Amino acid sequence: MKDIENIRLDGTSVVILDQTLLPGETKFLTLASADELFDAIATLKVRGAPAIGIFAAFALYVLAVQIEAEDYISFCRKIMEYSAFLNSARPTAVNLHTQLKRMERLVESCKDADIPVILDAMRKEAQDIQQEDINMCKAISEHGLSLIRDRFVILTHCNAGPLATSRYGTGLGSILLGHERGIRLRAFCCETRPLMQGARLTAYELTRAGVDCTLICDNMASAVMKQGKIDAVFVGCDRVAKNGDTANKIGTSGLAVLAKHYGIPFYVFCPSSTIDPECETGADIEIELRSQEEITELYFQNPIAPPGINCYNPAFDVTDSSLITAIITENGVCKAPYGF
Amino acid sequence: MKDIENIRLDGTSVVILDQTLLPGETKFLTLASADELFDAIATLKVRGAPAIGIFAAFALYVLAVQIEAEDYISFCRKIMEYSAFLNSARPTAVNLHTQLKRMERLVESCKDADIPVILDAMRKEAQDIQQEDINMCKAISEHGLSLIRDRFVILTHCNAGPLATSRYGTGLGSILLGHERGIRLRAFCCETRPLMQGARLTAYELTRAGVDCTLICDNMASAVMKQGKIDAVFVGCDRVAKNGDTANKIGTSGLAVLAKHYGIPFYVFCPSSTIDPECETGADIEIELRSQEEITELYFQNPIAPPGINCYNPAFDVTDSSLITAIITENGVCKAPYGF
Repeated sequence: MKDIENIRLDGTSVVILDQTLLPGETKFLTLASADELFDAIATLKVRGAPAIGIFAAFALYVLAVQIEAEDYISFCRKIMEYSAFLNSARPTAVNLHTQLKRMERLVESCKDADIPVILDAMRKEAQDIQQEDINMCKAISEHGLSLIRDRFVILTHCNAGPLATSRYGTGLGSILLGHERGIRLRAFCCETRPLMQGARLTAYELTRAGVDCTLICDNMASAVMKQGKIDAVFVGCDRVAKNGDTANKIGTSGLAVLAKHYGIPFYVFCPSSTIDPECETGADIEIELRSQEEITELYFQNPIAPPGINCYNPAFDVTDSSLITAIITENGVCKAPYGF
Repeated sequence: MKDIENIRLDGTSVVILDQTLLPGETKFLTLASADELFDAIATLKVRGAPAIGIFAAFALYVLAVQIEAEDYISFCRKIMEYSAFLNSARPTAVNLHTQLKRMERLVESCKDADIPVILDAMRKEAQDIQQEDINMCKAISEHGLSLIRDRFVILTHCNAGPLATSRYGTGLGSILLGHERGIRLRAFCCETRPLMQGARLTAYELTRAGVDCTLICDNMASAVMKQGKIDAVFVGCDRVAKNGDTANKIGTSGLAVLAKHYGIPFYVFCPSSTIDPECETGADIEIELRSQEEITELYFQNPIAPPGINCYNPAFDVTDSSLITAIITENGVCKAPYGF
């Protein structure tokens, strides 16, 4: 499979594949200003918890290059400002926070170095973050293969594939790796309203890789499970609490309830960096509320709701750990009680 | 509240409000040919199980007027042909079948009458069917009020309001009637992919009536239930088997599983004519599969899925009677074991 190059550093800019235009248009954006970089995260041009973390690390480097500081103190103060600014673009995915903190710690550890040396270290650190994610996704995908048998049919939600991460992905990684190794797998993709990441991105990635996949609307999951079409549910996630409660794309908790009702295993895939040691339970995870227009206007050519209608648009929901069969990280297949 | 005149007879045509254009455009269609009448059902210009039944009765009358038959036998044969043709427009809602059969029985009972007399009886029978539906919806709504308390928040799916029926509706009837009587109610509407009947029609009807309503995507139901925002789920239905298994808009069975998980009562509203004595269980109900393009193209301005993607698009699903708290008909609130 040809890799999808979703994020790369090009000199002193970050180049991303604009995920809002897929699958209709494959357009790369070259970003360098603070506003452009913030906007790319906030408007989901780059999305997926691990991908946001990688992007933010590159973005902080690109902004660092532009700092006109005479000494380490003022350089460092500016870095912290940019980091806080990027971190405020979205609240739920822990990776954004984690990778920015890692870059901040690097800068803090360089206080005796010249600024060009610090910049060099920052670039290398961001590249390391991406390379580590590639390695982690591969390791997660290998562990996930232990859960798959030949002719398995896997239901997925949202997008936890190469676009959201690096190379194989998390939730989609085992499907793509298994397919490469000749295991006969099929997938059902929930379209994932309101922003259609399942239809636009996951269906695109699976089709591109030659995996037999079928698109359904989110509300069809119960019907396909009831008909015995689904052997397992695989999803990624944005933040995991210490007790195993998991925040992921809105709709995930409903799929977990359905899977339990129909006796289907429900697996969550993520790098261990997605586990947040500062969150005791899912109740501590802040859920991003997004604009009403994403539901009523985006993607539609005609009004699909009366003008002025109230909408409730949470971007994520929390799945209780009691509904999760296992959480798969680069370290292996973890089962409750988690106590991360 | 001003009535929505969704179906009426105008001389020898049927006039309907085109439900595919709402809420953007309020357009009435005057239909008289067999193909136009069939198409109105098949393409959902008229929809909702009771509304389809009423429409089909008027449609059969309108077609009967056009029959150029010299004797009762050939008139009757043509009636049966038209009835079978209209009945083939959609398979799942029992009302289409039931009301056409009722019109056929009327014609069969008139074999000694002149054709103008039969036509007159047919027109009156179709008008009776509509008037009975108005009365039934009122009675269903009154019974449903016994399930509602002040400040209740009710989650609905698809559209079971005035557009789908007559006047108050079935699943929406108690909300509209309760609101008229000063009970403080709020509603959450699931948008109901792929055809958005919840967003386009239910939100339109509730807003028009002044009921406080909030639109959500289908996959947000679990989140709002988990947050304790919902006191009850109210849905209509298209066919009920003798054991209480219920076919309704795709997504209904998932909501029922979620409601059970979160301890929320789940109510189904329908006229008793929706109970099919020929269906022992839900397994006997034929589920209509609709076109893939409804998922990938309809309503969208840009491609939302890769070209050529497989889609699975069942229009309905079956909810096991074990997940239904009660079925409300014009005869009262029925609980399991049903044994209709």
